Amino acid sequence: MANFIYNRQVQFAETDMGGIVHFSSFFRYMEEAEHHFLQSLGLSVVMYLDGKKIGMPRVSAKCDFHHPARFQDTLQIFVKLHKLGTSSLSYAIDVKKGEILLATGNIVAVLCELNDQLPPKSIPIPMAMRDLLIGGTVG
Amino acid sequence: MANFIYNRQVQFAETDMGGIVHFSSFFRYMEEAEHHFLQSLGLSVVMYLDGKKIGMPRVSAKCDFHHPARFQDTLQIFVKLHKLGTSSLSYAIDVKKGEILLATGNIVAVLCELNDQLPPKSIPIPMAMRDLLIGGTVG
Amino acid sequence: MANFIYNRQVQFAETDMGGIVHFSSFFRYMEEAEHHFLQSLGLSVVMYLDGKKIGMPRVSAKCDFHHPARFQDTLQIFVKLHKLGTSSLSYAIDVKKGEILLATGNIVAVLCELNDQLPPKSIPIPMAMRDLLIGGTVG
Amino acid sequence: MANFIYNRQVQFAETDMGGIVHFSSFFRYMEEAEHHFLQSLGLSVVMYLDGKKIGMPRVSAKCDFHHPARFQDTLQIFVKLHKLGTSSLSYAIDVKKGEILLATGNIVAVLCELNDQLPPKSIPIPMAMRDLLIGGTVG
Repeated sequence: MANFIYNRQVQFAETDMGGIVHFSSFFRYMEEAEHHFLQSLGLSVVMYLDGKKIGMPRVSAKCDFHHPARFQDTLQIFVKLHKLGTSSLSYAIDVKKGEILLATGNIVAVLCELNDQLPPKSIPIPMAMRDLLIGGTVG
Repeated sequence: MANFIYNRQVQFAETDMGGIVHFSSFFRYMEEAEHHFLQSLGLSVVMYLDGKKIGMPRVSAKCDFHHPARFQDTLQIFVKLHKLGTSSLSYAIDVKKGEILLATGNIVAVLCELNDQLPPKSIPIPMAMRDLLIGGTVG
Repeated sequence: MANFIYNRQVQFAETDMGGIVHFSSFFRYMEEAEHHFLQSLGLSVVMYLDGKKIGMPRVSAKCDFHHPARFQDTLQIFVKLHKLGTSSLSYAIDVKKGEILLATGNIVAVLCELNDQLPPKSIPIPMAMRDLLIGGTVG
Repeated sequence: MANFIYNRQVQFAETDMGGIVHFSSFFRYMEEAEHHFLQSLGLSVVMYLDGKKIGMPRVSAKCDFHHPARFQDTLQIFVKLHKLGTSSLSYAIDVKKGEILLATGNIVAVLCELNDQLPPKSIPIPMAMRDLLIGGTVG
């Protein structure tokens, strides 16, 4: 299935008083990489279909942190879509700085109809989107 | 071991265009709860010992998201310190809105000496701190 | 016109590698204070009127920073609504730590109809809302 | 004096439930542009000189918001260093999307010695740095 590499420089506001990147920023990096992967396939994480707002809320996210990232580091974020369910997309994500593996993460997102006043409601991944996701090997 | 409850209202800037709280904000809520737990014991996540800066970087964080949180929701965050290693603290964390379980997470932090130019270096949890952590049941 | 005081503790993730609160966090504190002020009057920054989504985007924000804030500082944020236009609300905001004035800011927000695919469109502040805003002196 | 253009794509986590980029994110974009400008001159916003940590805390920041930015918009951020004081750097910043001016801002930063336990202390901008700042016209 699809693979993608996203390059990202660490910004000052993403660090904390410990002198390193705050751990919550890694989850943002992983999501950005996922969005750029989708964008590379002509897809988006927020779409309007038949007047409905479609999004991909996360149902699960995890990350193991091996080495810290610092201000102005250039990170390479490797996205691998490793499982495609009826409505769900499971990603395995590595964050590297050169040869050093800084973090390994997993994200599971679910295609949902979004409504400001109701809970997100999962919907099946349309066939055309599924084809793009299975076919894509970009970077 | 120690338990703690932290109340937190969702702020506008923590939501995203999906109309719900961005998933990375849940990791911030969990960390805030952990810090208030430590603060309740007279401890801090950043300390100065013998002129050295001591912190608690995360080595692992995960969260399963069951229901979305929305702007101005009042959340209750239940922190349970369930394992204390030589240098590590493992937390199980539930995020609830009234009776509804929104998210369940785990955080593993490691006591480290911090240096702006060197990697964090793990150090043993001092006995006095260990006693406080084992004894504490606050909230 | 209305005044309001909002108490806020500085969280770890709001600091940066300079060891102090990142300046963008002050803008979030000011907005939180404004929202709690509105909430204290029974108003919200996001409302649904006649099936339309109403919000208050900012048209202007500024802040002078006099002294840094640090992790776990307890801040008092003084909100003063000092001008009410046809659609706009102008706030003067002081951020204090005890007797020390850390920052002084101004926010101008405009009542707007929000639409995911069109620009925000300003609307007049309804009379009932105007009465609450002029009358309110809470804290 | 120096000019610089920084290109930046809007990320999902930078939006809010109003469907547009949260205003605090514009301040982060402006700071990122400033940092990339400094980086283009071989300077950084955080340096170590003679064992001392040097940074550039903001003393003032403001922004007027003319049009909203949305998810996946590509922004061009124009940085102009328009005044150089003994210790201070004053920037005028425009945020554009194509031909549309979204926001105009100002940032004043001050070169300071940073210490985790003392207030930032302003220091004169060294001559070599001043020369780079006056000479630089990059982008």
